[in-house]
Amino acid sequence: MQAAKGGTRIMHTNPTRLLSKISRRNLSGLRINSDRLWETLHETCKWGAAHRYGKGPTETGMARLTLTDEDAHVRRWLAAEVTKLGCSLSIDQMGNMFARQSGKLKSSAPMIAMGSHLDTQPRGGRYDGILGVMAALEVLRTMKENGFQTIHDIGLVNWTNEEGARFPRSMCSSGVWAGVIPIESAWNLHDIHDSSTTLRSELEKHGFLGSMACSSNAANGTLLGAHFELHIEQGPILQDSNRSIGVVKGAQGYRWLTFRVLGRDAHTGTTPLSARQDPLLAASRMIISSHEIAKRYDALASTGVLKLPSNASTNTVASEVTFTLDIRHPQDSVVQFVQEECLKSFSAIASQDGRGVAFDWTLDTDSPAVQFDKNCISSIEAAADALVGPDKRMSMTSGAGHDSVYTNKHCPTAMIFVPCRDGVSHNPTEYCSPEDWYVFLAMYG
Amino acid sequence: MQAAKGGTRIMHTNPTRLLSKISRRNLSGLRINSDRLWETLHETCKWGAAHRYGKGPTETGMARLTLTDEDAHVRRWLAAEVTKLGCSLSIDQMGNMFARQSGKLKSSAPMIAMGSHLDTQPRGGRYDGILGVMAALEVLRTMKENGFQTIHDIGLVNWTNEEGARFPRSMCSSGVWAGVIPIESAWNLHDIHDSSTTLRSELEKHGFLGSMACSSNAANGTLLGAHFELHIEQGPILQDSNRSIGVVKGAQGYRWLTFRVLGRDAHTGTTPLSARQDPLLAASRMIISSHEIAKRYDALASTGVLKLPSNASTNTVASEVTFTLDIRHPQDSVVQFVQEECLKSFSAIASQDGRGVAFDWTLDTDSPAVQFDKNCISSIEAAADALVGPDKRMSMTSGAGHDSVYTNKHCPTAMIFVPCRDGVSHNPTEYCSPEDWYVFLAMYG
Repeated sequence: MQAAKGGTRIMHTNPTRLLSKISRRNLSGLRINSDRLWETLHETCKWGAAHRYGKGPTETGMARLTLTDEDAHVRRWLAAEVTKLGCSLSIDQMGNMFARQSGKLKSSAPMIAMGSHLDTQPRGGRYDGILGVMAALEVLRTMKENGFQTIHDIGLVNWTNEEGARFPRSMCSSGVWAGVIPIESAWNLHDIHDSSTTLRSELEKHGFLGSMACSSNAANGTLLGAHFELHIEQGPILQDSNRSIGVVKGAQGYRWLTFRVLGRDAHTGTTPLSARQDPLLAASRMIISSHEIAKRYDALASTGVLKLPSNASTNTVASEVTFTLDIRHPQDSVVQFVQEECLKSFSAIASQDGRGVAFDWTLDTDSPAVQFDKNCISSIEAAADALVGPDKRMSMTSGAGHDSVYTNKHCPTAMIFVPCRDGVSHNPTEYCSPEDWYVFLAMYG
Repeated sequence: MQAAKGGTRIMHTNPTRLLSKISRRNLSGLRINSDRLWETLHETCKWGAAHRYGKGPTETGMARLTLTDEDAHVRRWLAAEVTKLGCSLSIDQMGNMFARQSGKLKSSAPMIAMGSHLDTQPRGGRYDGILGVMAALEVLRTMKENGFQTIHDIGLVNWTNEEGARFPRSMCSSGVWAGVIPIESAWNLHDIHDSSTTLRSELEKHGFLGSMACSSNAANGTLLGAHFELHIEQGPILQDSNRSIGVVKGAQGYRWLTFRVLGRDAHTGTTPLSARQDPLLAASRMIISSHEIAKRYDALASTGVLKLPSNASTNTVASEVTFTLDIRHPQDSVVQFVQEECLKSFSAIASQDGRGVAFDWTLDTDSPAVQFDKNCISSIEAAADALVGPDKRMSMTSGAGHDSVYTNKHCPTAMIFVPCRDGVSHNPTEYCSPEDWYVFLAMYG
């Protein structure tokens, strides 16, 4: 297959045709049914398909926000599929779904989990999260049809509300599981567009408010023996360095802040610049300043949301602007430093134009940098070396947060990255070549 | 009265107490009932009162958007009031209301009009537009109760949708009257928050779609003999120079543009700054650049509206940003020059960061600079000299557009400005001291 690079048109090619090109030393002796995975992934994307960008049946993005009707559809479908495979299915109080396949020992020891998430961004793609869950399902299907049993129990996890796009807390339910986020505050998260709807009310509505505690405590919750997560890289590094496997050592730290800049409404035609308190002008300077600061320290600073009052009008200086700031770096100390530099700079900006503005801010999310488990990393490295050779794999730090960041607190965890085209993610045209993900299925197998 | 300056608390003092302080040589021999005007203005602000900022009964701003229920209320009330006074009332196809009081000659010559508007910004005050209509009504009431008749007919106009806040075209219906805006395009303006509602559908709904042509053509429309508009300055110049009367020579030119900046959605944690196409970062630079360009040429450039897609999220670079740009200067050539400089600068900005963005733009409103009628200006100057003396009046250029800009195309027109506190307008705390507007009522009288 020719990977479609640089263009906007992407062919989602059936991976069967790729088999002859791929060196696949199958570690378990099993062979994944790549066609079935391909078809299953795209078939289930009918629940939430959105943002068509091409004519092909799979040429859409996704808008499958947590606990919407679309998400509930795919969850019910997943529940039925794992039950057919003979897995036991448990759902906890955050709607996290744990499917468990017994191993030869019939041991009560915690299962080895392959986990990710089925929810997407509002303008997301078909691979972020979804690939990890569908790949895990394909592993279970392959084992089942070959009568293959692992020694210990193995299973699949679908974590609720990883994206935090509808209910604004990312890695939300793995965070509750890990004891980092109190369940009450997670339950009480409001739909960002509908304050009358909470995460808990949607869990109840769709029948996914389970009875089991959402906890890593083996006594009443679900301890895991290990957590492996296959995920698209969501960045361009693997593609640009021509590698197929990213062995993820950890995740960068990040903080989400919200700034509110307060000015004064004024007529744009009659108010001299010197007499204004223009919060949008100040916010614009702040956004640019945060960008320049991040650049100097090789960090990331991004504003994804900016809001004016709904009654904003062309000939009125707005009274108030709210915007978010997302700061990231593999070292927590740099994240902290960038934040401090931004706050200093913003204070100066607040008095720069006209009669100045006021501002305040909140820290909404603080996710420290994470180091994954050395043994898990080694086992992925060994498998990658056997499958593609050391030249085609590389060590990486995850730029994004993932559920693995939280599972890592209570069980050995590591992640496997697969390239995605041009590093594009959180975008309808997000694309992961079957050539790449097929390799990883062999690894999972 | 002590004018409340510099503080946030404002006393709306009853003007009766001011009489002894004001030198009022009453040109017509009539005396305005200032209490009645005061009470009428604030009483009718019950329709649309919003944004309370103090405890007093008049300490709110206004949100009386064109052809809302609140606007319809005050229109019906005005219709009843002018009818009680014996005026004939005509309503044209844009809902403009013309109340006409016969003069001694019973002539069919066009009436002398005192006009302004009763609609407000969504976060507007109690004086912008409203003062001009209520002052005109008070003049008619005073004439009536004194049995005073002018030689020729005199009257009042309430122009529809001056603000352009709900249906986005300012000075909308005086523009149709003047033949500048085609009536079909004005009728088809959509509510900015509800695309199923048009200006015409709201005219019909509230019974203000008149049968008379909206035109300055005497044959089928409403030619005016002259148009005088009393209005708050909406800027700080009168207050800062301690003058009471602004004799308005004309209005500055302005243009409203809308820019659309196109980038690409991308994950904020995994997309290096160098790989981004971030439209909000670019828009921020454009807003600041337009501000710096305007400052260099002593012009105004303002962004009142900026919109991201409704699905924007903290950890996603947005795909698209839309923002408005409002450019103003008393000379059209400078407005044009600032626009050209902005476009040049924006083109450079578009390729400044990461992989760059695309942008396009539309010119939504182009309102050239205006010179008012010399005879009207002279008569205002003479009246002002007689009332307050030459030291207390000054010549000015209006920073804002007004209906008078359009009436000036077809009849002798001029405006009278009155100070407003700190130049604040399009703001709930907009405030005009009775001491100031009382003077002008004497002039009108």
